[in-house]
Parts: sequence; structure tokens; C-alpha cells
Amino acid sequence: MTQQIRVGLFGTGRIGQVHAMSLATLEEATLTWVCDPYLEGAKRTAAEFGGRVSDDPAEVFASGEVDAVIVASPTATHVELIEQSIDANIPVLCEKPVDLEIARVDALRAKAAAADVPIALGFNKRFDRHFVELRRRVGAGEIGALEQLIITSRDPGEPPAAYLPQSGGIFRDMTIHDLDMARYFLPDIVEVSARGANVFSESIREAGDFDSTVVTLRGSNDELVTILNSRHSAYGYDQRIEAFGSTGLLQVANKNDSLVRHWGTRSVEGTSPYQNFFLERYAEAYRLEVAEFLRAVRGLPSRSPGFEDGRAALVLADAAEKSARTGAAIAVDLSA
Amino acid sequence: MTQQIRVGLFGTGRIGQVHAMSLATLEEATLTWVCDPYLEGAKRTAAEFGGRVSDDPAEVFASGEVDAVIVASPTATHVELIEQSIDANIPVLCEKPVDLEIARVDALRAKAAAADVPIALGFNKRFDRHFVELRRRVGAGEIGALEQLIITSRDPGEPPAAYLPQSGGIFRDMTIHDLDMARYFLPDIVEVSARGANVFSESIREAGDFDSTVVTLRGSNDELVTILNSRHSAYGYDQRIEAFGSTGLLQVANKNDSLVRHWGTRSVEGTSPYQNFFLERYAEAYRLEVAEFLRAVRGLPSRSPGFEDGRAALVLADAAEKSARTGAAIAVDLSA
Amino acid sequence: MTQQIRVGLFGTGRIGQVHAMSLATLEEATLTWVCDPYLEGAKRTAAEFGGRVSDDPAEVFASGEVDAVIVASPTATHVELIEQSIDANIPVLCEKPVDLEIARVDALRAKAAAADVPIALGFNKRFDRHFVELRRRVGAGEIGALEQLIITSRDPGEPPAAYLPQSGGIFRDMTIHDLDMARYFLPDIVEVSARGANVFSESIREAGDFDSTVVTLRGSNDELVTILNSRHSAYGYDQRIEAFGSTGLLQVANKNDSLVRHWGTRSVEGTSPYQNFFLERYAEAYRLEVAEFLRAVRGLPSRSPGFEDGRAALVLADAAEKSARTGAAIAVDLSA
Amino acid sequence: MTQQIRVGLFGTGRIGQVHAMSLATLEEATLTWVCDPYLEGAKRTAAEFGGRVSDDPAEVFASGEVDAVIVASPTATHVELIEQSIDANIPVLCEKPVDLEIARVDALRAKAAAADVPIALGFNKRFDRHFVELRRRVGAGEIGALEQLIITSRDPGEPPAAYLPQSGGIFRDMTIHDLDMARYFLPDIVEVSARGANVFSESIREAGDFDSTVVTLRGSNDELVTILNSRHSAYGYDQRIEAFGSTGLLQVANKNDSLVRHWGTRSVEGTSPYQNFFLERYAEAYRLEVAEFLRAVRGLPSRSPGFEDGRAALVLADAAEKSARTGAAIAVDLSA
Repeated sequence: MTQQIRVGLFGTGRIGQVHAMSLATLEEATLTWVCDPYLEGAKRTAAEFGGRVSDDPAEVFASGEVDAVIVASPTATHVELIEQSIDANIPVLCEKPVDLEIARVDALRAKAAAADVPIALGFNKRFDRHFVELRRRVGAGEIGALEQLIITSRDPGEPPAAYLPQSGGIFRDMTIHDLDMARYFLPDIVEVSARGANVFSESIREAGDFDSTVVTLRGSNDELVTILNSRHSAYGYDQRIEAFGSTGLLQVANKNDSLVRHWGTRSVEGTSPYQNFFLERYAEAYRLEVAEFLRAVRGLPSRSPGFEDGRAALVLADAAEKSARTGAAIAVDLSA
Repeated sequence: MTQQIRVGLFGTGRIGQVHAMSLATLEEATLTWVCDPYLEGAKRTAAEFGGRVSDDPAEVFASGEVDAVIVASPTATHVELIEQSIDANIPVLCEKPVDLEIARVDALRAKAAAADVPIALGFNKRFDRHFVELRRRVGAGEIGALEQLIITSRDPGEPPAAYLPQSGGIFRDMTIHDLDMARYFLPDIVEVSARGANVFSESIREAGDFDSTVVTLRGSNDELVTILNSRHSAYGYDQRIEAFGSTGLLQVANKNDSLVRHWGTRSVEGTSPYQNFFLERYAEAYRLEVAEFLRAVRGLPSRSPGFEDGRAALVLADAAEKSARTGAAIAVDLSA
Repeated sequence: MTQQIRVGLFGTGRIGQVHAMSLATLEEATLTWVCDPYLEGAKRTAAEFGGRVSDDPAEVFASGEVDAVIVASPTATHVELIEQSIDANIPVLCEKPVDLEIARVDALRAKAAAADVPIALGFNKRFDRHFVELRRRVGAGEIGALEQLIITSRDPGEPPAAYLPQSGGIFRDMTIHDLDMARYFLPDIVEVSARGANVFSESIREAGDFDSTVVTLRGSNDELVTILNSRHSAYGYDQRIEAFGSTGLLQVANKNDSLVRHWGTRSVEGTSPYQNFFLERYAEAYRLEVAEFLRAVRGLPSRSPGFEDGRAALVLADAAEKSARTGAAIAVDLSA
Repeated sequence: MTQQIRVGLFGTGRIGQVHAMSLATLEEATLTWVCDPYLEGAKRTAAEFGGRVSDDPAEVFASGEVDAVIVASPTATHVELIEQSIDANIPVLCEKPVDLEIARVDALRAKAAAADVPIALGFNKRFDRHFVELRRRVGAGEIGALEQLIITSRDPGEPPAAYLPQSGGIFRDMTIHDLDMARYFLPDIVEVSARGANVFSESIREAGDFDSTVVTLRGSNDELVTILNSRHSAYGYDQRIEAFGSTGLLQVANKNDSLVRHWGTRSVEGTSPYQNFFLERYAEAYRLEVAEFLRAVRGLPSRSPGFEDGRAALVLADAAEKSARTGAAIAVDLSA
């Protein structure tokens, strides 16, 4: 393919910047439009990474200058922008979640299923090469049958209080990544149990949300998945997965930036805390996520998660929320 | 104290042997009676470790030759032997569980509470010096406030099919140790959720039991405890604890018998699988458990868990069983 | 500084390519000339990274289009190209070694010392951020006074037999990097002892060279440095440093590309072998090496090693060779 | 064998106590005589571990009540006590070194070679099960041909100044253990190079000794062995071996008493410093050393090192001293 894919970007916040940077490193694509209702943001991004600017998505779709779009705007805009992409027959990579309301997602579901263009969801962890290696080795039978999966995910620090009300709650905002990771290994989850707690954050408590959660999922072959979340972590971003199988165990450890270890009179073998946050830990994964989407755009086989994956993660997050509130395990049918 | 404590032992199975051996290494005690309805077993143990033999507990209590007893006989005999110890005013160390029926335990509860003699429960993990170190350092504030506790406990292989019907099920037989460990850190557990699964063992399924379980407990300050259990583990006995707090994390890793690591063309840094099973992993803990009981016998301050700890673990195990069967989180009140 | 530094590159072999790639990622520089007597190589490099081509260094120096040059051509050309750079008053970054003959290096020494332009030597390990962190922490007193330094350096596989005669021998070709690393920590080395062996390679033996060596250096404060070298390593590129001091120890471990570890029935905790070779292990260091040289070109403070460092490493390599051949420890005076 | 081996012990200092304790745990032996010119010491040891006391070795040999003797008295007495054992036809286990003077050792050599009874030398490291495992796996070909061996040995703290003059110097006192370990893997050492330094201890310098040393040995197949020694170590007893071979690497790591690791805001993955000193680190090895000697006494195959091993270690230590003083590599012929 000699022609570059022309990409339009919606949203120029933190994650929009990340995608713009990824595009800049990918030879097969070029950023042609940058769209944000906050036009100054669009201008700054375009100045650095190229493209024309707009505060109106319709202008972008109508320009005839985009072969694909990336949606990194606020969650509330996702459904509409996906729908416009489908209508314009333009492939779209949309940040998670599809929406905070499953009803709005379901309203789009049939149309998304019938769409002729790729609809990819931005679950970046699926593109981390360590998790990919883990998935590949589990699939290759290195630990026999997968029986238990333990996903630990703790953010360095809680989000700003102002963000909490629009976050959709910890399950839809943070756990949703781990729920999708669970489905990366075990797509057919049939049951969700969850417990939430308030152990450290007054602002999270006031927002009616949990700061710490434990989720237990059941796969269709009775596998058990445990997701351990906390909104803070004193020692840095804690991102681990342990896959326990009938013949062994595979783990992805935390990533340490430093190879230096220290031996002293009071402690030995210690090293530096983990990389600060997801932009550093998953920098390469974000790039691969966009690259994989571009493969789909070009009609090549692609392992990008799609609309149904986005919906499934939200269904699981909703079930987790319901379980945490009621104390009851919730049966789910993702294929329904 | 110049006089040795004269100890009577009930039960000469695997764990009875362990206690006899511990007594042999402890200068402050001597084994004076060995009692087992299977008299040959009693004779063999007495031949190796000393003591007179009997197949009748009444004979032991009436002998006037025991200052303390250790109960390592089948679970069904525990309640009665504890009661006889109380009646005889003789300190008793009883293996877990007190009984498989909470009603029988509760029937003894008031008497146990009013007893003038120490009643110690055999939760060996409380005496493992690594878990003790972990507990001490958590208590010393090294990780701030304890927020999450993750206990991983996987046995090397499933128990014999014949044992399963009398085991009381995985929660009362295996998880009960971890439920007690949870209470070692957070005595006041207020809620139990559990999920059970059948992923590998046909015989366990046929016995109506689970081979894999995940339990989530809630402490009275909203701490979340997760217990991960499996009845088998290809790489050896898997015994880990992770304590997550507001300012850090402490872990107890698996114990490796070998200091040798290998680097080759296909794998590097690998070492040998973990010690085979609890008799090896907890050898020292079993000895300290008896030593600590002997301190109580001598009227010294002792940190042996007591009757209420034994009852609490069973209450939690029952709640876990009920939760796993119904899907509902179960509120518990251990002080009731 | 708004103007880009125009760089001329001599040599388009493996390491020349690396430098061209580094320049491409550094905004402050642009590749303007690519020079190689093998003109096809120069053309290929220029096609990818830009610049005009030549097979004659004089043309490059005379062009008026280079503010700095990078010398990545064969060792035999280094002295002459450095001299021409000095004469042209153009800063130069030259790959190690300056030359295989100390006499030729010494002949240039006074001129280099008097030169008005920066002369940087390509000791890439000095720019590895883990070694830099180690050096910084040793310097900050984290291990008290440095007493012992152990540098392990084992290449994945031996060089082609055809390369051996021109290599200058293992001390001048391979150990020289570690000799410079020793001086990164202890610039004033006063004594060199070395033992060489032939344990695995027939072709190296036939070339009259060693395949395995151990070098012991003495610093001016009686510190002992040990360098362990092998021309092969079954488990990948082995690059470690251990700094032992009066109050502790600091280590740089090998770099592992994968965060995945495996637990099985025969081995546990194993991970994948180390990155294949220096281009991968030191990719970032090579880029920083050029960046640091560009700082010197711009007149900024720079920590690039210079001509005297290049000479010192060769003096030490010569002494190691002599010691290995004679069995005698060799006193050296690097300041002489 | 129903009869116990009756053992006489010479010397009741620290190491004599260790051997007495080992004998107490070994069913096949009983301590019958305890001999020390300081009779109070003998009495204290006999009170704890049994046996008659004497301050005269002749009395012990003449008693007819010893089937074997253990020599743990000062070095200066070793040669004479070994000789008396041979004359009395009584097996002897003698602490290292045989003597500080090779002439005195050589004077006994022919007689020792002709002796009908086992003469075992107390090189405890040969009985550490991790080093034994390493040796076994190297021998089994797990790393192909052994090419390099690196032995790190650093004591927690320097010996008392008063001990230094009688120590024989670091090579004969401390390095000698590592020289024997080298021979455990490569019995036929042909060359010794050594460098010594004074980096931290004024009292060691005043005694004319080194506080830090590096020794390089050459095996008969050109293998290179490096021994790294320091008389102090801030982080505890540092005892490591790395065996590098044609197809891989095997390491024995330091032994850590604690399984607990800590993650905090400034350091992660740290654990506690290493066990304090050789009595703890090699407790089990000392016991196995005596057990293995008892096998020899009973005429069973035994892997106890013998007189020639003791002599060889001293020859290497002497050569190391000479090399460190002269700067020359010293050829040795251990079979001469």
C-alpha cells in the first residue's frame, strides 16, 4: 500500500495527544484533521502533529479527507461519533467505554453489527506485549487448561474529585480495562460477583463510589477470574496478571525502569518504584493499538477488539456495580 | 520451671506424629500417654517417642499423669475431647476444625469460655515465622493502614477420594486455615462472599465439593481480603500472602529449598519447584505451635489462638459455603 | 539554538547505520554528508537518512557543510580522520579504539590536547542509563567508599574468524569497553593483571588470541576491579556490574525483554534469555552518546569521554595483553 | 551397625562446640572424650554433650575409648594430633588448615599417604547442599563444559586485631576455603595469580595483611577461576558461586532467612540482609561434614576431603600470597 491513511482525530486531551503521537511514528498514516469543540486544543495538537482543525465533527466527516477516525473525546460523545462514522462508512477507533449507559450502547448495537467498516475499541492493555506473550503462551498450552486468572491493577493515585461524577464509577472507569483483559483470556464470562470498599478516600466516598474493589468472574468452563483494584498505590502503577493452569503458572510482573538493585545494612535487593502511570507503562501498547487499527482499515487481518467487546466490558462493569450494591452474584449472557 | 510438662497425645496419624516429634525436641515437655483406638498406632508412636499407650481417652485423663493434652484425632472426636479436658481441668491443644457442625461447637461455647484452662487451636500458619514477621511489620505501620489482603493457598495435589466425604468440604477443610489467617490480620470479619468451581477433579465434583474457590471477606474497617484456593498445583505447595496498605505493600513469597538458579538457551533465572507439602513447609511452625501452647500451660503469656478463633474460622467457612451455594454475600457477626 | 548541527558520517557499516539512525531521531542535528570508500554503502545510507555522498573524506571536510563529524569507519582510519577534523577545526565523535597501536595514538596526543574542538570517543556503555544511575549512586555515597568493582561482559557468540586478525585481540577489541567502564568509576588505574584462556574456540586459538579472560585492575586508592570476559554466552548478552563498597553493594542486572515468568513441574520462576546483542541492549545508549556529543558541539557542558579516555583504555588493553602473555602484573601511569 | 562410634574431641572453642553439637544429633556417634589444655572449657563442653575430660591428648589416645577423633584445636597443634591419630590407628577429622607451614605439612605427607585410617579435612563448604547441588549439576553437564568459575566470599566483619598475627594471613585463613571450593570443581589447578589490597582496615594493614583480595586460578583445561574476597560486608555474609559453561550458567545465590519483601515509595522488592555468619549459614553443612566423616570411619564410601586436599589448599594459598607479593603468576603442580 503506497497511499497513506488519512486520519481524523476527535478530542485533544491527554489520550488524544497520545494517539496523535502514535500516528506521527506510524508511516502508514497521516493526521489530516484535528477536531475539538475547544478549538485552541485542536490548534495546539495540529501545530505539533499536522492536520486541519475544526470544532465540528460534521465538517471532518464531510471533508472527504479522512479514511479513518480516532475518537478520544469525552465518553458522552462516543456513541454519536461511532454512529456518524458508520453512516459515513469510515473506520473508527473509539476509546473505552462506548458509553456509560448500556441502553445507549444497545441502541447502536444492531447498526454496529451491520456496519461495513471496522469499529475498534481502545482497550490498550490488549496490546501490551507482555500480556500478549502471556495470552499466546496460555493459548499454546504451557500451563495446561486455564483454571484461575488473577489481575491486579492499582493506579498510583486517585483521580481528581471533579472527575469522579462523570467517571461512571470505578467499575465502568477503571475495572473495565481488567474486565476486558479477563475476556481477552476467557471471552465467555457467565457470572459476575463484586465487592467494593471505602478505605482511604473521602472524596470518592462522597461521590458515592468505591476506592477499592474485588471482582470475581466465572468463565463458561468454570474458570475463576479475580480482579483486584485500588485507586491508589504508594509504590507506583501496579499492573500484574497471574494465570494458573492445570500444569503450571505464568505471571506478568511489574515493569521496572531501573536495572539497579541495592544492598545495605537494613534492606537488600531493593530497586526503584514502578513507572509512574499508564502513559509510560503502556506507551508502546498505545502505539500498537493504533497500528492494529490501521491494519483493519487496510483490510488486513487485525486483532483489534470491536464494538461487541466494548459492549461486553460495559455489561460486565454494570453487573459488577449491581453485585457490589446488592451482594448478589449476577449471571450474565454476553451473547444475548 | 524445673518440672517437665507431661503431655498426652490423642491420635497418631500424620499430624499426631508431627506433634510427637515436636514434643521430643522441646525440653520443657515429655510425652507420657499416647492414645488411639487403633492401639497399634499408639504403640508405634510410643515406641519412638515414649509414653504409655491406651485406646481409651478416659484412661489418660484419669491417669493423673498428664498436665496437658494434644488432640490430633479425627474431627468428630474433637468436641468431646475438648470437653473432657475442660472437665479434667487439663489444658488442651486441639487440631482444627473444632467440629464440622457449628451447632456442636456452639453447644460447647459457653463452657469453653468459662473454662479455667487454656484451650488452644491448631492453626499452624499463625506460627510460620514469615507470616509472623509480616503480621508484625503490618502492625508496626510499615505499609500504613491495611487495605487489602490477598492469601494464595494451593495444595500440591487433591486429597484421596475416600477422604472427601468426611472433609467437610473445601471451605471447612482447606480454606479454614486461610480464613484464620485473615483473622490473624483482621480479627473482626463482617462479611463473606465466595465462589466455587469445578475445573479439574471429577472425584471432587462427584463428592459435591469444589476444587477451586475464591473467597472475599470484608473487615470491620472495610478492608477487603481475597483468598485464592486450589486443590492442586503443578509447581508445588503455593503459600503466599500479600498485604496492601496505604503507604506500601508487603509480601511473603513461596519458600524455595534450593539457592541454585539456571541460565540456558531457552529459559533463564529458573529454580526448583517448591517444597512438597505442609509438613515440610510448616515443620518449624508446627514446633512453635506446640511450644506456644506449652507457654500457655505454664501460665505464661501466649499467642496461641483459642476456642473462639476456632469457632470464628468455622463460622466463616460455613458462610463461605453458603455464599458459594447461593451467590449471596453473607453478613457475619463473630462477636454474637 | 535554532540552527541544526550539520553532521558528516564516515563509515556506513553496522555502527555507522546506528549513528545515522540516532541522528534521524535528534532534532538538533541533520546528516549532511555520508562518506565511505565503498560508495554504494554511502548511497544506501544517504537514501534512508539523507545527506550527500562521497568516497573521499577530504571532500567532506572541504564542503563547508559539516559542523561535526562522526567516525565509524575501520579502526585503521581513525587517527587520520581525527587529525583531519582537528585541522579543519571540526568536532569529532570517533568510535573506539583510537587505534590498535599506542605509538600512533601517542603521536596524535599533543595535537589532540591542544585542539580547540571537542574530540569525543564512542564508549557507548558510559551512556547506558543503568550504568549512569549506578555511577551516580556510587558517587552519591550510597555504598560508602568504593572498594571492589566487578564487570561481567560476555558476548552471545564469537566474532567471524575473518575478523579476528584485524580485531587487535580480545583486550583491545572487547575488554576495552570494560576497561573504559572501570575508568568511568575509577579514572586513575595504576596496575593491570590479566589471564587469558582458550576453552572453546579453535578459530580464536588459531588466531593466537584468547576466548576467555579475567583482568584485575588496581585503582589509585587500592580499589580492586575485576573484569570477566567471554567471547560466547549461551543465555544471551551478559552485561552486569557489581560495585562493592564499605557500606553496601549496588548491582546492575541483565536486561530482560520479557516480564513473563513461568512455573512448571521441573523449574519455576524462569524467564526468557537476554536481549540478543549490543545493538538492542545499548540502542538507547548509542542515541544518548550522539546527543551528548552534540551538546559538546554546541559548547554546552558534556560528559562525553575524550581523546585521553580513548588513549587510557588502549594503554590498559596493551598492559592487559602484556600481563596475560608474561604472567606479570603491569604498573601503568595514565597521567604520564 | 548397632555399635556407636566413640568420638574424642580436641579443642572446645567455637568450632569445637559446633562439632560437639553435630555429634549430639547424629545417632551413630557418641562423644566419649573432650580434651582441651584449658580444662574448664573441656568440662563445660562435656557437661553439655557428654564425655570424659582431659587436658592431655595422650590420655585420650591411650584410653581405648575413642574410635575416631575430631581436631578443632589451634592450627599449631593439627600436625601433631594428626600424626598421633595415625600412630594410634584412629580416624581423624581435622579442621583446616593442616598447618600454616607447608614444610610441616610435607613432612607428614608420606606418613599420611601410607596411613591405614581415614584422615578427613574440615572444609565445611563442600557439604553445603546448595554447593553440592551446583557441583552435581555441573558434573551432569547442565552447562556443558565448565569454563569460568566465580566464587564470592565476603565476611560480615574483620577478625579481632589480636587474631591477625596467628591467622597466617587472609589467603591461608579465609581464601583457603574458596581455594578448596575451586578444587571441588576443578581439582587440578595449575596456576595462581593474586592481587591484595588495603582499602578499609588499619589494623589489617598494620598486621601486614590484605583486607581485600582477588585470586585468579587456572585449571588444567584452561578454565579460569576468580575468587573475590573481602574481610567485611555491610549487608551480611556474602557467599555466592557462579559456574559459567559452554551451554549455560548456574548460580548459588545468597541465603535469605526471610521470605518477606517490602514495596514502598522509595524502594521496592527489598528484603532483609543475609544471615549473620558461617555458623548460621553453614550449620547444616557442619553436621553433614561430621556425618560424612563417620561414614569413612565405618568403612563406607565417603566424600570427605582428605589430607592431600588440605595440603593442596595450602599450596594454593601460599602461591596466592607469593603472587600478591611479587605480582607474578605462580605455576603450581599439586600432584608433585
